[in-house]
Formats: sequence, C-alpha cells, structure tokens
Amino acid sequence: MSMTELSGVRTFLLGLQERVTAAVAEVDGGDFITDAWQKEPGEPLQGNGITKILENGEVFERAGCGFSHVQGSRLPPSATQHRPELAGAPFEAMGVSLVFHPRNPYVPTVHMNVRMLAATPVSAGPAEAVCWFGGGMDLTPYYGFDEDAVHFHQTCKDALAPFGGDKYPRFKQWCDEYFYLKHRQEQRGIGGIFFDDFQELGLEQSFAMMQSVADSFLPAYLPIVRRRQSQPYGARERDFQLYRRGRYVEFNLVWDRGTHFGLQSGGRTESILMSMPPLASWSYQHRAEAGSPEERLYKEFLIRRDWV
Amino acid sequence: MSMTELSGVRTFLLGLQERVTAAVAEVDGGDFITDAWQKEPGEPLQGNGITKILENGEVFERAGCGFSHVQGSRLPPSATQHRPELAGAPFEAMGVSLVFHPRNPYVPTVHMNVRMLAATPVSAGPAEAVCWFGGGMDLTPYYGFDEDAVHFHQTCKDALAPFGGDKYPRFKQWCDEYFYLKHRQEQRGIGGIFFDDFQELGLEQSFAMMQSVADSFLPAYLPIVRRRQSQPYGARERDFQLYRRGRYVEFNLVWDRGTHFGLQSGGRTESILMSMPPLASWSYQHRAEAGSPEERLYKEFLIRRDWV
Repeated sequence: MSMTELSGVRTFLLGLQERVTAAVAEVDGGDFITDAWQKEPGEPLQGNGITKILENGEVFERAGCGFSHVQGSRLPPSATQHRPELAGAPFEAMGVSLVFHPRNPYVPTVHMNVRMLAATPVSAGPAEAVCWFGGGMDLTPYYGFDEDAVHFHQTCKDALAPFGGDKYPRFKQWCDEYFYLKHRQEQRGIGGIFFDDFQELGLEQSFAMMQSVADSFLPAYLPIVRRRQSQPYGARERDFQLYRRGRYVEFNLVWDRGTHFGLQSGGRTESILMSMPPLASWSYQHRAEAGSPEERLYKEFLIRRDWV
Repeated sequence: MSMTELSGVRTFLLGLQERVTAAVAEVDGGDFITDAWQKEPGEPLQGNGITKILENGEVFERAGCGFSHVQGSRLPPSATQHRPELAGAPFEAMGVSLVFHPRNPYVPTVHMNVRMLAATPVSAGPAEAVCWFGGGMDLTPYYGFDEDAVHFHQTCKDALAPFGGDKYPRFKQWCDEYFYLKHRQEQRGIGGIFFDDFQELGLEQSFAMMQSVADSFLPAYLPIVRRRQSQPYGARERDFQLYRRGRYVEFNLVWDRGTHFGLQSGGRTESILMSMPPLASWSYQHRAEAGSPEERLYKEFLIRRDWV
C-alpha cells in the first residue's frame, strides 16, 4: 500500500468523524469538544488522534467519536493470528470509533467502528505492505421496537449489498458472536454487522466496502433517534436504562478485545473509555416483571434473531 | 489436610460472614437478604455458597458479603504457578469476600477477602493435601482523612504482629502492587494488606493468621464508618463519589484476577459482581480543581505511602 493510498484512508476517516459529529451536534443542539492528542516520543506506539465528545447534551448524555492513527515497530501477535508471517512487522493502524449514549431510554445506544491496518513484512519493501480492513456497527436498545431493529439491519444489509450477497449474513452472524456477554448468556443488543481482517475483495473494493458501511451509519441510526427522542418516560424507564448500561460496561471492560487490551497495553485511557456510559447502575438479581416491556427486551431482542 | 480441618475452616468462614453482616446490618438499620446457591450437577466446578447483600440502606447503598466453597477435579494452571506439581490435582477452595459501598461520600468503600485452597497431588493420599491461605483488606476513600488511613493500617498491622514483624510490611507492599490501576497510573485507594499462597507458618499458624486478619476487619472499618456517616455533603461530593466509583468498576473488571477470570470461566455472575457499586459515572478528562479536597485525594492518598 502506497503513502498516497494510506493518506486517502486517513482523509476519509477524518471526514467521517467531522460529518458524523456535525450531524449529531445538530440533532442534539450541543457541541462536541475537540481534543487533539499526540503520543509522546519514546512510547511504544507512536501516532496521533482527535477525540471528540459531547457530554450532558439534550439528546445525548454522552457521545464520543474518536479518530486515531498509530504506528508501531512490531505488530503484536494478537493482531496476526491468521498471518504468522507478519508477526513483528512494522505496522500502521487507523480508525474511527464511536459510542453514543442517549438520554431518553427509548433511544438505543449505538456503536460504530471502522479501521484499517497495514503491515510491511520484514522481508518486503514498503510498497508491498499488506493491508486489511475491519469495522461494523451494532445497536443496543433499552426498550425494543421491531421497526427500529428492522431499519437498522436493513440499512446495514443495503450498505453491503454492492459487495456481494454473502457479506451481510456473514457479518451479521459475526456481530452476534462478538457482542455476546458470556457471563450473562445475553447478547449486548440487537446486533448489526461486524467484520475484521478483511481484504478478500482487493485493496480498492475492500476500502470501498468499509466506506459504504461508515457512510450508512447516520442513515441507520438517526431516523431511530428522531422517532424516539421525544417519547415520554419516567423513573422506571430511567432506572432500567441505568441498569442495562451496566451491561455495556461489563461487555466493554471484560470482553471487548480493543478496550481490554488497549487499557492493558498502554493505550490512551480517556479515548478508549469514551465508550463508557455517563451513569450506570448495578443491583442484585434484577428480574424483569413477567409480561413487561423490560422482559420483552430480554426475550425478543437480546437474542440472535434474523431481522431482515 | 484432614476433613476435620477443612470443616474447621468452613465453620470459621460461615461464622465470619454471620458476624460481619450482623454488625453492618446493625450500623445500617437495614437487613441483608440471604441467597443460598448450589452449583448444578455437570458444571465444571461443584459446590455451594451463601450470598448476603444489603441494598439501598441508610448507611450502605450496596453491601455484599459472599461465602463460597467449591470443589474441582483439576486445579487450573493459573492457581499453581509456584507449584507445578499440583497442576491438574483435585482441589477444594473456600472463602469469604465482601465489598461495602457506603452512601455518604465521606465514608470509604472497603473490600475484604479471606480464602483457603487445598489440593491433593495426584500421587498422594487424601491426608497429604497441600493447603494454603490468602486474603487481605483495602480501603478506598473518596475524601482522604489521615486519621482514617492510619487507623486502618494500624489495625491491619496489629492483626499480623503475632505472626512476625515482617508480615505487615510485606503484605502492605503486596497490596499496593495489587490494587493499582495501571491504565490510570493510580492506586485504587490507600491500600491495606494482601497475601496469597501463604503456608510458610505451617497449617495451624497460617490458618490462625488468616483468622486474625478476618477478625480485625470490623475493628478496622466500623470506627471509620461511625466517624464519617453523618458528615453533611452535597451534590459536589456525591458527583465525585460516583465518578471515583467508576474507577472501582474499572479495576474490578479489567485488573482484578478473581473477577475477570471468574466471569470468563463460568463463575456465578451475580455473586462475583456484588463488588460493583450501585451507581457509577464516567466523564471525559475529569480534573480536580487545584487545592481542592478532590485533588488532595489524588496527591496525598492515591499513592504508595507509609501510614504507620
């Protein structure tokens, strides 16, 4: 992969961060703060990033969207399970990652991430870098609505359709498998799509697929926000939202590879933990009442289910 | 270790759980609920336990104290790093673990745990089981008070004194090293004592040391609760408490070996996560004001420091 191509990916990702945060700021009425950072010389990873976060907004209680671009001298083995020839190779990684926690319990929390990794095998020249893409998005409702789940999945499916009919079913299943809380035997939410290590369409088309997924994020999520953001709610719904946010914390800190290994390996803590909810609660043996909307969430939404 | 000796440890631990929860219920005015559980036949670990928890009390917002006693057919390698001859041996483990989250931000959160592990090397008879002890306690204030820290550490030191003057300094340092949030470069609190894999005094005296530590828990903690529980506070102190509780969540889910591996290996989730606070918050780049009590917590308390 050439420098020009890398710079094309960087330009796309920075633009994506701008577009997404501008659209969300407009929905919310509040502003994102922007925090540009740079790794100190001598740290194991070099690089820079831009963290954007909106806290305590009208619609979003906490909405973080980060761009990062790092270079390392030796690719960690965990990143190269399927490519042993790349272990220890110099690498470059960039991506945009976001988690939005809305205030209204009827609006679901959402996560989206797109990323690219390029590594140069030790024996090769710089033009022979190997490059792959990853990403996806998934939705975590507190109260389930079929039409929201169908819309979200349909938008994901449409974004992938130009790249082959096999992509949505594969990435939908991958998402269900990844966003699973084994210790609760629960899905994190209604899923979406997830892919990693992707280069099977060649560089240009694989990048195009990543862009298509990224560009479908706002159309997948904002209509749901608009539909639910003014729905009245009370203490019961707020309490359940706080309780369910505890699951989000559990997933991210216990199971999410990026978060867990990022924190353990010296990543930028405040950027990694932008995914944490603004407020979360725990209580012992919480049980949803039979026949309640809360029970319906568990039974009909937090399961592996075909939505489209 | 004989069956009689094992049953002596079990009796002590069950009594400890009773005494501690009774004393805390008296301070609080509320009641612990009691939940006895038993592992299902066919699960990898067999055994039973008693979970006691008080939620939404006057003094304690969430106070959990669990007893568990499990048997397994093969000791996991992680438990036998220093004893390769025991890998795969049948084992038995029991312990009491507690975390109390007070309502008033001037009252610190506390954690205590005592445990025993017995394993029978495959080549030996049941009477030749190898047995070791672990445990400790540590204090996590939201607002620092020197006299509380000194009292807590002095009580720990006194509990260990009959077992040799080296024990407190060793276990104090071990505690500082264990309860450290590497991703924040912060201590979890003011520490206390921590020991593991302990059998150097022989079975009888090692068990006696564990009992002495356990018995010193109420005298170490309750005087601090009584001193602070009626101190007036406002939204500022409450907000800081919720924010700092986020660190407790981060430590337990990311760094605490018992919690993390318990959840990943099929432990009883609701019992393991009794340590979670009832409510916790996150905010981006939270900064304590210069010269404030919140800044003083970071600078003077969340560091490795000799208190006695």
